[in-house]
Amino acid sequence: MPARVAVNGFGTIGKRVARAVSLQDDMEVVGVSKTKPNYEARLANKEGMPLYVADSKNLNEFREQGIEVEGNLQELLTKVDIVIDCTPEGIGRENKKLYEEADIKAIFQGGEKHEVAGLSFNAFATYDAAYGRRYSRVVSCNTTGLIRTLYPLDRMFKLDEVFASIIRRGADPAESKGSALNAVEPSLHLPTHHGTDVRTVMPDLKISTMAAKVPTTNMHVHCIHAKLRKSNVKTADVLSLWDQMPRIKFVSGKHGIKTSGQIMEIARDLGRHGGDFAETIVWEDGVHVEDKSLYYYQAVHQESDVIPENIDCIRSMMEMERDATRSIRKTDKSLGLV
Amino acid sequence: MPARVAVNGFGTIGKRVARAVSLQDDMEVVGVSKTKPNYEARLANKEGMPLYVADSKNLNEFREQGIEVEGNLQELLTKVDIVIDCTPEGIGRENKKLYEEADIKAIFQGGEKHEVAGLSFNAFATYDAAYGRRYSRVVSCNTTGLIRTLYPLDRMFKLDEVFASIIRRGADPAESKGSALNAVEPSLHLPTHHGTDVRTVMPDLKISTMAAKVPTTNMHVHCIHAKLRKSNVKTADVLSLWDQMPRIKFVSGKHGIKTSGQIMEIARDLGRHGGDFAETIVWEDGVHVEDKSLYYYQAVHQESDVIPENIDCIRSMMEMERDATRSIRKTDKSLGLV
Amino acid sequence: MPARVAVNGFGTIGKRVARAVSLQDDMEVVGVSKTKPNYEARLANKEGMPLYVADSKNLNEFREQGIEVEGNLQELLTKVDIVIDCTPEGIGRENKKLYEEADIKAIFQGGEKHEVAGLSFNAFATYDAAYGRRYSRVVSCNTTGLIRTLYPLDRMFKLDEVFASIIRRGADPAESKGSALNAVEPSLHLPTHHGTDVRTVMPDLKISTMAAKVPTTNMHVHCIHAKLRKSNVKTADVLSLWDQMPRIKFVSGKHGIKTSGQIMEIARDLGRHGGDFAETIVWEDGVHVEDKSLYYYQAVHQESDVIPENIDCIRSMMEMERDATRSIRKTDKSLGLV
Amino acid sequence: MPARVAVNGFGTIGKRVARAVSLQDDMEVVGVSKTKPNYEARLANKEGMPLYVADSKNLNEFREQGIEVEGNLQELLTKVDIVIDCTPEGIGRENKKLYEEADIKAIFQGGEKHEVAGLSFNAFATYDAAYGRRYSRVVSCNTTGLIRTLYPLDRMFKLDEVFASIIRRGADPAESKGSALNAVEPSLHLPTHHGTDVRTVMPDLKISTMAAKVPTTNMHVHCIHAKLRKSNVKTADVLSLWDQMPRIKFVSGKHGIKTSGQIMEIARDLGRHGGDFAETIVWEDGVHVEDKSLYYYQAVHQESDVIPENIDCIRSMMEMERDATRSIRKTDKSLGLV
Repeated sequence: MPARVAVNGFGTIGKRVARAVSLQDDMEVVGVSKTKPNYEARLANKEGMPLYVADSKNLNEFREQGIEVEGNLQELLTKVDIVIDCTPEGIGRENKKLYEEADIKAIFQGGEKHEVAGLSFNAFATYDAAYGRRYSRVVSCNTTGLIRTLYPLDRMFKLDEVFASIIRRGADPAESKGSALNAVEPSLHLPTHHGTDVRTVMPDLKISTMAAKVPTTNMHVHCIHAKLRKSNVKTADVLSLWDQMPRIKFVSGKHGIKTSGQIMEIARDLGRHGGDFAETIVWEDGVHVEDKSLYYYQAVHQESDVIPENIDCIRSMMEMERDATRSIRKTDKSLGLV
Repeated sequence: MPARVAVNGFGTIGKRVARAVSLQDDMEVVGVSKTKPNYEARLANKEGMPLYVADSKNLNEFREQGIEVEGNLQELLTKVDIVIDCTPEGIGRENKKLYEEADIKAIFQGGEKHEVAGLSFNAFATYDAAYGRRYSRVVSCNTTGLIRTLYPLDRMFKLDEVFASIIRRGADPAESKGSALNAVEPSLHLPTHHGTDVRTVMPDLKISTMAAKVPTTNMHVHCIHAKLRKSNVKTADVLSLWDQMPRIKFVSGKHGIKTSGQIMEIARDLGRHGGDFAETIVWEDGVHVEDKSLYYYQAVHQESDVIPENIDCIRSMMEMERDATRSIRKTDKSLGLV
Repeated sequence: MPARVAVNGFGTIGKRVARAVSLQDDMEVVGVSKTKPNYEARLANKEGMPLYVADSKNLNEFREQGIEVEGNLQELLTKVDIVIDCTPEGIGRENKKLYEEADIKAIFQGGEKHEVAGLSFNAFATYDAAYGRRYSRVVSCNTTGLIRTLYPLDRMFKLDEVFASIIRRGADPAESKGSALNAVEPSLHLPTHHGTDVRTVMPDLKISTMAAKVPTTNMHVHCIHAKLRKSNVKTADVLSLWDQMPRIKFVSGKHGIKTSGQIMEIARDLGRHGGDFAETIVWEDGVHVEDKSLYYYQAVHQESDVIPENIDCIRSMMEMERDATRSIRKTDKSLGLV
Repeated sequence: MPARVAVNGFGTIGKRVARAVSLQDDMEVVGVSKTKPNYEARLANKEGMPLYVADSKNLNEFREQGIEVEGNLQELLTKVDIVIDCTPEGIGRENKKLYEEADIKAIFQGGEKHEVAGLSFNAFATYDAAYGRRYSRVVSCNTTGLIRTLYPLDRMFKLDEVFASIIRRGADPAESKGSALNAVEPSLHLPTHHGTDVRTVMPDLKISTMAAKVPTTNMHVHCIHAKLRKSNVKTADVLSLWDQMPRIKFVSGKHGIKTSGQIMEIARDLGRHGGDFAETIVWEDGVHVEDKSLYYYQAVHQESDVIPENIDCIRSMMEMERDATRSIRKTDKSLGLV
């Protein structure tokens, strides 16, 4: 029997998670929930996703606007094995008691603190630790992107220390708030939480991060300086390592792909749904080893890179697949990440 | 036997035209051509589009970079019935003699002048005039967008006069040149060519236009003031008229779709290839009739709105379908514009 | 004795009004007020502007942060002849009763409705009507910009009808909210209020407007189509008319000034305080008359174009100068607008 | 007798250098040169800067457009003691032979290589080395900004190693070319030249840099991780050190200054000419020491931070002031940097 999944919150992440779940042969979307009768509620109807209101008292408001609703969130939770909480930052924590009452498993997103779930998830690093667990938390898009390249580096070459500067996109393409139109805004609280968050998955890594928000809607870009313990590592060794990893994809300035906008164009040309790019993208001619210092740039599509991680996390927590690599391969095939 | 089509130029428009042709059951892409061995040349290989070099002397350069090439443009032209010229502005005119020598039909794009082809094409307005012709020119994205809403208005209510201000996107998403980062640049040569260009298709329309370039990569937005000859036209009459037309799509600020970025998000959510939106998008709550003045906003996806027009133009010129409406319906179904 | 002036609200407009008042020889800034102890409160201290808190209960908060405060708004109002209300939209209306209680004159800004003051002010058009009045309202930046070019046109050539599309800057340079980073947002409520607002000053003008917000911090740009009643008006006649008017300044694309960013650069090169440009800027090679239709582009610096108007308005309401032209000349000289 | 100065190139840097020279009591602008009769040539006329054409054959073109010209560059060079070469990257090198022929001293800008001059200049670090020299090169805006904070750190606490990520502004405010509108473009050639360039002034510093261009016109922002050799350095020690240095200025997120746009607003509010900010700006609440790691953000105004350095460089090369600190103080006072 497929895993019965609820998606609480049908926004930027939630709508993608729901779609990805619906593409799996071992899980199904029982329903999704929305707070407000907005565009995304209509989208759920259009996509045939059974829709539930987060709060019963808004039920009429949805129906008056011609949006079909099946019931409320509590009702949805009684019908599922696991809920993917895709609500805004800080709300997941409050929802946890609902999930406890419903006696179901739950996955939180990176906007929540590690402590909410007690386990932070990345498919390469903590798939086994999540196996059969009741609660997990898929780390944020930036953290996921960092772990994807750092985890294999650490396994193969041992990382001595990592310093990363994160050039954050100011807002998502359809958002109308947040960032200055023509300015850069550094994250003044130092070091930023990104390094701390990587350590929820790779606890022994010495990593510090800085970050600044810039006026683009296209991807986060990371400038990474990683010090390796191993000697005589060549640039080619690093490229070769990453080349074997799923969810890492190379682009090349030499072939004309110089900007994050051009990377997104590749996703469009590939016919990826929504023009999404769930892989971590590394500029292969922007990787450079000098002595024991490795420098590289990578780009992270903030809207989609955590989506395959959520699928693997369901599979691990629901004990549907014992082997991380097999789950990753299955997920990636279903999502066209090949 | 399907129409044998060449696409000369495999850039923003060319790659979309080639893909659209390949989705038709009555035409096939025999080959596409590129000048330089860049990212898009690789894309042609990846998509299995037979690739020809525009200039034989660059053939080795392509092959040295591992790009498969079938031959040169002249060779390609001998194998086809019709070529879609998607080369940059002004180059099409020069290519015309090649097409004459090859004795094939040719479609030019809106960057070329009307005189190059002698007929300017829009599927609603000049399908019949293009039937069996040797040369046609599909008008530009902005002109196509304007005609889609103005042509039915003129047929139904008679247009007295139209004034439109065109807020142009500064560059396409993957481009790195052109527009100021934080400024508006008006088109000082007045009135701008857009109105003149509309008249290549609707010669009797009194229309004048102004335009300014702004720092966005997402769609052109038109502010249109159309004076109607007919009295007592209501806003609802206009909406009802457009609602029956293919290739016009409504969005609503009331449902939260307030920006051109949110419109593109709909295309992404709909799973449109490349996140493209080939329809002309009208804000239904941004349409207003007062006395005989109609005001409305529309948005045009510069990269894709001419694509279905090119398909219909092939069908008309190749005498494959006598009826415009049937061609339009067939094209739209194949491209998922429904 | 110089007019004693209070400036209520020391933000984008207020800090400029206060500075402009301080440059006049017939008026003085008695004090300015702030709600919060932020950067601009510190600026008032640095500039030696006596600072008052809008609400007494925040007085300690200011002092704890080392900001010097003279007292509260009510105290300030007892010391002045006139207050310039530069508070955010809609707050001015609520403040009016404070001004009535203090028995002082008051000028409101364009965010307030015409009815708050009963008279809408532009130095060219309604200086005389404001003479000796208790309340006036200086119209908004866009409205001021429109009136500056339309009023002389109407006087000289009679305007039959005007249609303007307003390309609005998304946010001010130091703001971090509001506009989408990469999208255009039309003002869906049609026709927009800008036309209505022009009629508070030019009641007989037939004008309709549309507007859209774009991602720039540099100036609003207007695309204007004005129909003249008079025949045989030449482009040169229009240029010659505007050339004689204060507060209209030409730039030329032929000299390389093509964007609103380049216009602001001129203000910087001229050494204008803050890089402000209080004049309405017209592209002289973007003015075109065809039959009785006049087309032109103009740019309006949203932060500063109403500043000289406020100074003239004080002078008129305080009966300090009977003649509009003399006041305008005095103001412009003091502000370096020559 | 004041030093007689020519400014070759009257663009973004040249016009500011010329203006700064004209504000000194010990030097004078004998003339400036332009290649084309554009806006900036007109500006030179307006500002009363004697104008010379770079190439005699363009002389008529200037005069036909009504621009007053004194003669050609060679003539100008015979009248001066020193030339400040502010021509575009790579042109300075070619101009050097003209300066040799004219037997005058010359200062190049950071677009030229170190080898052109043999000495790279920063007022704090190499004033003495430049004393009496024939050629010097003022390092680029980013390099100048880095040295201003790193040089005192190295003197006081000894720097073990520095890693900096440079978030580059995509274009200057009045430019219309260069950067993608909605994307980030990393500098793929690693490590970037910025670190190498710092070492032309601080040869023993171990520094590596990465960089990416973002769509803003406002300032470069640096994310810096500096490892100190000295133990027990506190954040307060670093702040206190910088607080004593000229040309370093603090802003504070706590006072509401969170973005580079807000920093530029301070320059505007201070009435700085052109809204320029020649100091290196450090967010004081974005400085953090942890163990021996110092993290900080700084912002550099690309158009103006090298201007005072050019003035000091003249003074040193012309042997007008033996003491760097006195020259810096004199320059800063004249430019209002206090």
